[in-house]
Amino acid sequence: MAEKRPEPIVAVGTIALDTVITPWGKAENVLGGSGMYFAVAASILAPVNLVGVVGGDFDHWEELNRPNLDLEGVATLPGKTFRWGGKYRENVNLRETLYTELGVTENYDLQVPESYRGCGMVCLANIDPPTQLKLLDSMRNPKFVVADTMNLWIKSDRENLLEVAGRCDVLILNDEEARQLTGKLNLVEALEEIQGLGSRTVVVKKGDHGAIAALGSELFAIPAYPLKKVVDPTGAGDSFVGGFAGYIQRAGSRSHAAMRTAVVYGSAMASFCCEDFSIRRIKDLSLAELEARVEFFRKLVHFD
Amino acid sequence: MAEKRPEPIVAVGTIALDTVITPWGKAENVLGGSGMYFAVAASILAPVNLVGVVGGDFDHWEELNRPNLDLEGVATLPGKTFRWGGKYRENVNLRETLYTELGVTENYDLQVPESYRGCGMVCLANIDPPTQLKLLDSMRNPKFVVADTMNLWIKSDRENLLEVAGRCDVLILNDEEARQLTGKLNLVEALEEIQGLGSRTVVVKKGDHGAIAALGSELFAIPAYPLKKVVDPTGAGDSFVGGFAGYIQRAGSRSHAAMRTAVVYGSAMASFCCEDFSIRRIKDLSLAELEARVEFFRKLVHFD
Repeated sequence: MAEKRPEPIVAVGTIALDTVITPWGKAENVLGGSGMYFAVAASILAPVNLVGVVGGDFDHWEELNRPNLDLEGVATLPGKTFRWGGKYRENVNLRETLYTELGVTENYDLQVPESYRGCGMVCLANIDPPTQLKLLDSMRNPKFVVADTMNLWIKSDRENLLEVAGRCDVLILNDEEARQLTGKLNLVEALEEIQGLGSRTVVVKKGDHGAIAALGSELFAIPAYPLKKVVDPTGAGDSFVGGFAGYIQRAGSRSHAAMRTAVVYGSAMASFCCEDFSIRRIKDLSLAELEARVEFFRKLVHFD
Repeated sequence: MAEKRPEPIVAVGTIALDTVITPWGKAENVLGGSGMYFAVAASILAPVNLVGVVGGDFDHWEELNRPNLDLEGVATLPGKTFRWGGKYRENVNLRETLYTELGVTENYDLQVPESYRGCGMVCLANIDPPTQLKLLDSMRNPKFVVADTMNLWIKSDRENLLEVAGRCDVLILNDEEARQLTGKLNLVEALEEIQGLGSRTVVVKKGDHGAIAALGSELFAIPAYPLKKVVDPTGAGDSFVGGFAGYIQRAGSRSHAAMRTAVVYGSAMASFCCEDFSIRRIKDLSLAELEARVEFFRKLVHFD
């Protein structure tokens, strides 16, 4: 990895106060949102300039005072921070949304600080596609764009989502979304079809089944980290994107080889995220811990 | 791999005439059964002495005249060969059994030819646990025992299945069965608990999500081969066991390193099996083709 400090990543995504109930416990009004998970995860590897919005009720500033995280792009508007409540069963793949309160995000008009606009690396964490496009349009010369999405936008705003897919270098989504987007049940076919939408690299997250990536005409796949206990899977996908993009930026390379390793960093980060509620596990995660888990993956898949 | 001809594997399992309907076509009264898939797959890598039973209506002898496959242990009884009919939907994980006709298997009293009884490597493909135990009891000095099972026996004959688990060196089952057997939803926990039943090595097949193995205190995991079209998944799990055991026998080693590679051979074999109906794809599969697919796996999971 490059020794000099990497350039910052400019990222947009939601910042939320989540209430999460799992079989292992409950966490109320804790930090959440795609942008938040992304930023905390990526900032372990590279500086992050976060763009987003919170309400006047947001009181987690101290927790976010950390190296590599710049919050100049986070607007505070009168009103309430976006709130989400969810409940997981023992099978964590089944989750129930208890409530969604849009709060200040309803009237949010994204503004990108002038100091951010020259950055080359742009990450569009999961948020409505028009907001993703607005960030992209605000950048002077985006050289490398990583985008995430979710099922909601595939259904409700396919047109803008396809524009995002056409303008990003790496599109990251989960297996269900890949199938929904393409209508292909077979994931290998779905990957190819998504590459045809414009992004040469497509990464599909499969939760506890790992991840598969199409890199040009190459495929890369990795199993998930064998976690014995998933305390809270909220944000695992966003943390994956953070680990992926953070590694790419830190490595200073966009080669297929770098992307492969980035998928492993994403997988490792996602596994840490699941070990506790909210950002609790990843916020104090050290680079050494992350690297040790990447080494675990190397042994996990090794065969002579 | 060892250059000299490996010792034979003695295997027991069902021999069936299957009728299979998938979205890609239909195959009627074709060769099937756990023992058949196992034997054809394993015989690409090592000699197989098969124990099983067919009825007077069985007319596939010519197709089974192949190097490395000894059928002295296959009894022909008056009556009908075991028959199974199944239908798959586009999502091949959903399958419907159309009929099961036990035929001659109902009154089958397993007999192991004297020439088989001295072999050290024993494979118990999926068949009722009492038959698996009977084969085991017929062997003079079984040195290495690999066993497969299925959900049916976990439910209907747990006691004998647990005896099989306690007497084998490697237990291979699928993810659903591992959960059913242990009551643990988390696969890592389930793996540990199954190791506690006696077999130091446990391999869990996850279909299109790959496989995970507990080897003593080590874990090994590998994604599935990214198949673009699954024509017929029948027998993929049995072929996996054949590829696994065949490799172990051919390599002449039972080290953890050999087991890891064996899981990859099993995965590669299972992927070939899915490419056509019945044993069509694996019966003419060359060792070179199999090894090339193992090399594909190596590239698939490689990262710097």
